[in-house]
Amino acid sequence: MTKYDDMSREELETLKAQLEEEYARFKAKGLKLNMARGKPSSAQLDLSRPMLGILGPDADLSAADGTDCRNYGVLDGLPEAKELMAAMLDDEPENVIVLGNSSLTAMYDAVARCWAFGTLGSAPWCTLPSVKWICPVPGYDRHFGVTEAFGIEMIPVPMGEDGPDMDEVERLAASDVSVKGIWCVPKYSNPGGVTYSDEVVRRLASMECAAEDFRIFWDNAYAVHHLYGETERQDTLLDIAAACRDAGTEDRYFKFASTSKVTFPGAGVAAVAASPANVAEIKRRMSAQCIGHDKLNQLRHVRFLKDAAGIAEHMRKHADIIRPKFELVARKLEEGLAGTGCGSWTTPRGGYFVSFDAPTGTASRAVALAKEAGVVMTGAGATWPYGKDPLDSNVRIAPTLPPLEELDTAMDVFVCCVKLAAVEKLLG
Amino acid sequence: MTKYDDMSREELETLKAQLEEEYARFKAKGLKLNMARGKPSSAQLDLSRPMLGILGPDADLSAADGTDCRNYGVLDGLPEAKELMAAMLDDEPENVIVLGNSSLTAMYDAVARCWAFGTLGSAPWCTLPSVKWICPVPGYDRHFGVTEAFGIEMIPVPMGEDGPDMDEVERLAASDVSVKGIWCVPKYSNPGGVTYSDEVVRRLASMECAAEDFRIFWDNAYAVHHLYGETERQDTLLDIAAACRDAGTEDRYFKFASTSKVTFPGAGVAAVAASPANVAEIKRRMSAQCIGHDKLNQLRHVRFLKDAAGIAEHMRKHADIIRPKFELVARKLEEGLAGTGCGSWTTPRGGYFVSFDAPTGTASRAVALAKEAGVVMTGAGATWPYGKDPLDSNVRIAPTLPPLEELDTAMDVFVCCVKLAAVEKLLG
Repeated sequence: MTKYDDMSREELETLKAQLEEEYARFKAKGLKLNMARGKPSSAQLDLSRPMLGILGPDADLSAADGTDCRNYGVLDGLPEAKELMAAMLDDEPENVIVLGNSSLTAMYDAVARCWAFGTLGSAPWCTLPSVKWICPVPGYDRHFGVTEAFGIEMIPVPMGEDGPDMDEVERLAASDVSVKGIWCVPKYSNPGGVTYSDEVVRRLASMECAAEDFRIFWDNAYAVHHLYGETERQDTLLDIAAACRDAGTEDRYFKFASTSKVTFPGAGVAAVAASPANVAEIKRRMSAQCIGHDKLNQLRHVRFLKDAAGIAEHMRKHADIIRPKFELVARKLEEGLAGTGCGSWTTPRGGYFVSFDAPTGTASRAVALAKEAGVVMTGAGATWPYGKDPLDSNVRIAPTLPPLEELDTAMDVFVCCVKLAAVEKLLG
Repeated sequence: MTKYDDMSREELETLKAQLEEEYARFKAKGLKLNMARGKPSSAQLDLSRPMLGILGPDADLSAADGTDCRNYGVLDGLPEAKELMAAMLDDEPENVIVLGNSSLTAMYDAVARCWAFGTLGSAPWCTLPSVKWICPVPGYDRHFGVTEAFGIEMIPVPMGEDGPDMDEVERLAASDVSVKGIWCVPKYSNPGGVTYSDEVVRRLASMECAAEDFRIFWDNAYAVHHLYGETERQDTLLDIAAACRDAGTEDRYFKFASTSKVTFPGAGVAAVAASPANVAEIKRRMSAQCIGHDKLNQLRHVRFLKDAAGIAEHMRKHADIIRPKFELVARKLEEGLAGTGCGSWTTPRGGYFVSFDAPTGTASRAVALAKEAGVVMTGAGATWPYGKDPLDSNVRIAPTLPPLEELDTAMDVFVCCVKLAAVEKLLG
């Protein structure tokens, strides 16, 4: 295909007419398709239906240590649930606290505790003149939503192919005592699908921080969410806990994970792993907020997923359902856009998203066009703090929810809209 | 029986020897009994076992509006769950937000939001020089734990037979702008079993508050927890929402409830009800913390409990199990202590506790004696802010967890310990 930039005005006008015609045909179909959020499809959710039969009316509802899972108590989770979540968090059970249904809540609560109380003896963040946060971009909109809720000033730092721009991260962390943390989705990142290199992990662990209570929020949301079964096609991630221990900064990180995209979003189990000092503090603070989380749901998950091997086997079934969707997205983008200069995109080996960069200044127009034609994408700008992408370029594609045939159409619409927005821009 | 105060020193010495002998016999039994926490017994938990079969592997997992309860979303709860919880909260579904597994978390989070953000435009409480709280005593230790966690100064106000001393509550609320709230368990209170009179509810709703953002934390934990089936033996409570609307203070209250002591503690459903302005604000703030709570568990509860009538029927089964325990406690106290002047106690018509007042300065000794003999009570002082009962008198009795025969022995031990502590005190 010809690069749009190289086309004459006349060629562009002709192309525009063709694209408008194509767009009109899509619009006429009255589509109602959604690629907005990283939701599992119905077929994926069906994989965990057997879990619902595990704790029936006559089931043994006792944990291995005899705890009656129906009653109050056990603030930090059943021992066997800690073990299960430790497998996801690449950590030891004693460093794990099993929580409720949402790692987002876990992260919000972690920020909220620092806000109200400080951490490990530091001043409550609410008493400081300013709190700032490093936000690798493109990133996860709900992360940015947490820091925005507390009025924390977010500083975008570009993501590269092996993680955030560490020169910039190091500069910010070292130079400003009000910089208190960083959001990280270190494996199959949201939305780029990037896995941090060992060097990036080590630099995060060992960098100089002006704030003694600087915290890495390590949201390992896609720890086990590979698209491919072959080990050599799976990304691996250096453990931040080990890296921090090596660097003598063992209190610097909070690791988060959940089974939201393993079993049921909203009815899964979340957990945090941290250093012994952090775990002790979290438990002490949390004891004012909570008697214990849902132990029956913990038991359900333990008996269904069993262990690391059980999780891996279950995730292979997920991969079999979503891999064709990611491959379809890659093919559609390649077929529709290769050579046009109208966009670049990632081809992740895991996670839930494809990150797409449209020509500067056209992302919101493309997303608006798609919406008008019945295809809802994540809002343009959502991958940036405050929802503001300065280049108006990045679009997050979430291919998991729609069935394959719907995704096929949705991608045709999206490609058409990207091209149309690009041509409109070039024609001015 | 003779009043201990009227006994001669010699009579007291003889009595002490008898009691010590009795106590030694109990101690020799190596008992391991627990009346510390308001936990349902195993028999009560069995009542909700059928609920676990309701969402089996082949169940329809869609809400009435078609929502797939397995997936993300629905921040404020399924419509049918709102309806169910509205029945418990004596409110309308549109004023209800269905939450996670714990009303304690709901209350902590409500304080935490005011702390970080203020409410309805008021200054964040963390920015104020001082925040104070009215704490009716005896009260619920975990309430006091929430306010203590935030460094809020707690001011005890005595409970009477129809609620807190309203002259004192009104004086505090009107005179000090730093007084921001009050803890209330308005029905079958923890631990006194007191239900607030209509007049108390109306005075709380209409009283002058120096702080514009004064909030009544209305923890209706025992809304449906009657001990008797006959309507005339059940307490009724004026709705604080209606009273506040009548008084023109409709944003003054947050109502809380949960199914923790209806179905499973820790695996139940909690909810908050509030004015439209408060509900809108809670949802807005909460959207940064949470995508949605456990909708499968909401669905399970709706299909099991159905509606207000279903809840009432289920609660009658609970009452049949725990009523004999409360009656046993009353009988044991009566038989063991009537006429001795060694204590007074409540005989509630619902809830989970009996409040016992030992002679001044003897509660902690009595509880320590009981513990040494293998009977764990709620710690003396726990019913007061900071765990400090200035009279060292109040003890919370929680009779629901032990089976009837164990409770029988536990109460014998407790009565013996109360008498022994009293005699020791009198002998100086």
